[in-house]
Amino acid sequence: MIILNGGSSSGKSGIVRCLQAVLADPWLAFGCDSFIEALPAKMTASDGGIVFADDGGVSVGADFRALEAAWMNGIAAMARAGARIIIDDVFLGGAASQQRWRDALAGLAVLWVGVRCDGTVAAGRELARGDRIQGMAASQATAVHEGVSYDLEVDTTQAESLACARAIAGRVS
Amino acid sequence: MIILNGGSSSGKSGIVRCLQAVLADPWLAFGCDSFIEALPAKMTASDGGIVFADDGGVSVGADFRALEAAWMNGIAAMARAGARIIIDDVFLGGAASQQRWRDALAGLAVLWVGVRCDGTVAAGRELARGDRIQGMAASQATAVHEGVSYDLEVDTTQAESLACARAIAGRVS
Amino acid sequence: MIILNGGSSSGKSGIVRCLQAVLADPWLAFGCDSFIEALPAKMTASDGGIVFADDGGVSVGADFRALEAAWMNGIAAMARAGARIIIDDVFLGGAASQQRWRDALAGLAVLWVGVRCDGTVAAGRELARGDRIQGMAASQATAVHEGVSYDLEVDTTQAESLACARAIAGRVS
Amino acid sequence: MIILNGGSSSGKSGIVRCLQAVLADPWLAFGCDSFIEALPAKMTASDGGIVFADDGGVSVGADFRALEAAWMNGIAAMARAGARIIIDDVFLGGAASQQRWRDALAGLAVLWVGVRCDGTVAAGRELARGDRIQGMAASQATAVHEGVSYDLEVDTTQAESLACARAIAGRVS
Repeated sequence: MIILNGGSSSGKSGIVRCLQAVLADPWLAFGCDSFIEALPAKMTASDGGIVFADDGGVSVGADFRALEAAWMNGIAAMARAGARIIIDDVFLGGAASQQRWRDALAGLAVLWVGVRCDGTVAAGRELARGDRIQGMAASQATAVHEGVSYDLEVDTTQAESLACARAIAGRVS
Repeated sequence: MIILNGGSSSGKSGIVRCLQAVLADPWLAFGCDSFIEALPAKMTASDGGIVFADDGGVSVGADFRALEAAWMNGIAAMARAGARIIIDDVFLGGAASQQRWRDALAGLAVLWVGVRCDGTVAAGRELARGDRIQGMAASQATAVHEGVSYDLEVDTTQAESLACARAIAGRVS
Repeated sequence: MIILNGGSSSGKSGIVRCLQAVLADPWLAFGCDSFIEALPAKMTASDGGIVFADDGGVSVGADFRALEAAWMNGIAAMARAGARIIIDDVFLGGAASQQRWRDALAGLAVLWVGVRCDGTVAAGRELARGDRIQGMAASQATAVHEGVSYDLEVDTTQAESLACARAIAGRVS
Repeated sequence: MIILNGGSSSGKSGIVRCLQAVLADPWLAFGCDSFIEALPAKMTASDGGIVFADDGGVSVGADFRALEAAWMNGIAAMARAGARIIIDDVFLGGAASQQRWRDALAGLAVLWVGVRCDGTVAAGRELARGDRIQGMAASQATAVHEGVSYDLEVDTTQAESLACARAIAGRVS
């Protein structure tokens, strides 16, 4: 498994698509976006679910955590059943988020990848994307990496997605 | 778990969203669309992956089946870990497709729901959606139900998504 | 030109795509959705622009009206330059909205089409679509037709998009 | 008016969204993507319309050119009616494409902006976007600029969208 962690608009999705293209074997890609899409719409606006504040802040509640834990177990089961899997996530809780994954993935080989991007640059890309709440990129740029340990770090401030993907792919083989 | 099976443009996604809204507990929704989205782009145009022909025919290969089996195991693990899950799928193999799910979900309580829609009506809705290959709706309308057994069947030819969702929700509680 | 007016989730977009498919000549399709997409993102949350309230209410300000007037003039110019054009709009102002179009389209042949849908049914479809603010369908279902005169009315409560499109196409030839 | 010309995946859309954010007045944004979306689906696969080949080649026919000419006239009319407008286009015909715009926009003040991006870098971004036919970026990177004259050129190979937008905005005031 490969797990990418980085703030909003740091370029994770682009790296994932490039990884799927450059890796010879077929890898499945899941992440916090596809998990949130699987939630009932009503949970994306409730205290127990996930709330996106107007200033870019994101907070999650108990119902979200419970479903997320089940989802992580399911992802682990897919990997144990033989699927190669790439996850892109935003570790809102930093080291605590990584620990949740570690618990779910016990016994599986995982390549931990940090996706860094300068906060100001990420905020500009957030503006250019046009479909994200302004402020998420800036508030997450460094916070999501606090206390997290990686096998590899890439920085999209200067490097293209494809170059980052190639660096990651070089560690998987 | 709730599993909906029906042809393309039979209205499964609308029923799923209504189900997530009317059911009191939070249910996660996954399906063949989200699975295909998780695949590498290159697999949606290769013989080992999934091929969408210009006439609406869909064929899948060995690599697709292998990843799908792992994915089904993962979905089962999410359910065993406590998540309520709604799946919408297109049983291209009819009874054989249902058997694959039965094997993966051994021991779990599943409500099997058939989503029917008259082939001509579904073809018209396919045209109205505008983002699907023409011909899928007609070719799948009855084929996907062959040999499949259900706890409940709904028909969207006349009934609205919300009414279908309420009928299904009435069986879950 | 063909102008469709109806509330949110009344099925206008589906009818437009079917119309483009069944009409022999190529028709361009524009509408309030594509106009709003052309606006700066910051205008969709400002008093001078367009505000979508949490209860489904929609209000527009002076800046919106000014750009809309220019846009309507441009659409008229495309028609005068020979393009066949289908517009789908939501006449938030009822008869006043129709008058704005009449002023812009002076001298052009227009088929005015009312797209009706029972408010409760439209609200259910809004839920099934999953990407709209709940409440728009119900609040607009009858209000947008107040004082508006039509050449033809279709009702999607029972009729499919394709059948509605064929009825409309029968009046254009 | 501001007209941006550049190859596929050169970053035009991101610059447009940033421009709409940094410019004080509200500017409407249209472009070849929104024009193609307005076409009947059947025209995006016909000889008279627009054909996207598997190798990234794009060819357009007489029906496309006729509707495009009417559309350009309509855009010009919007500008003459007072709207500030940003266009992003791909000059498949190079200088001939620019001339078509010049004819339509006679008498209007236009800022012509070339959006350059190294072909290899653009091809990598095309891969990262995941929703484009591979090959368009490479084949268009330099061809679309042949014989075209600009008031300003930006290069997204190194520069961020927001920085490019600020450079352009500095020329409009």
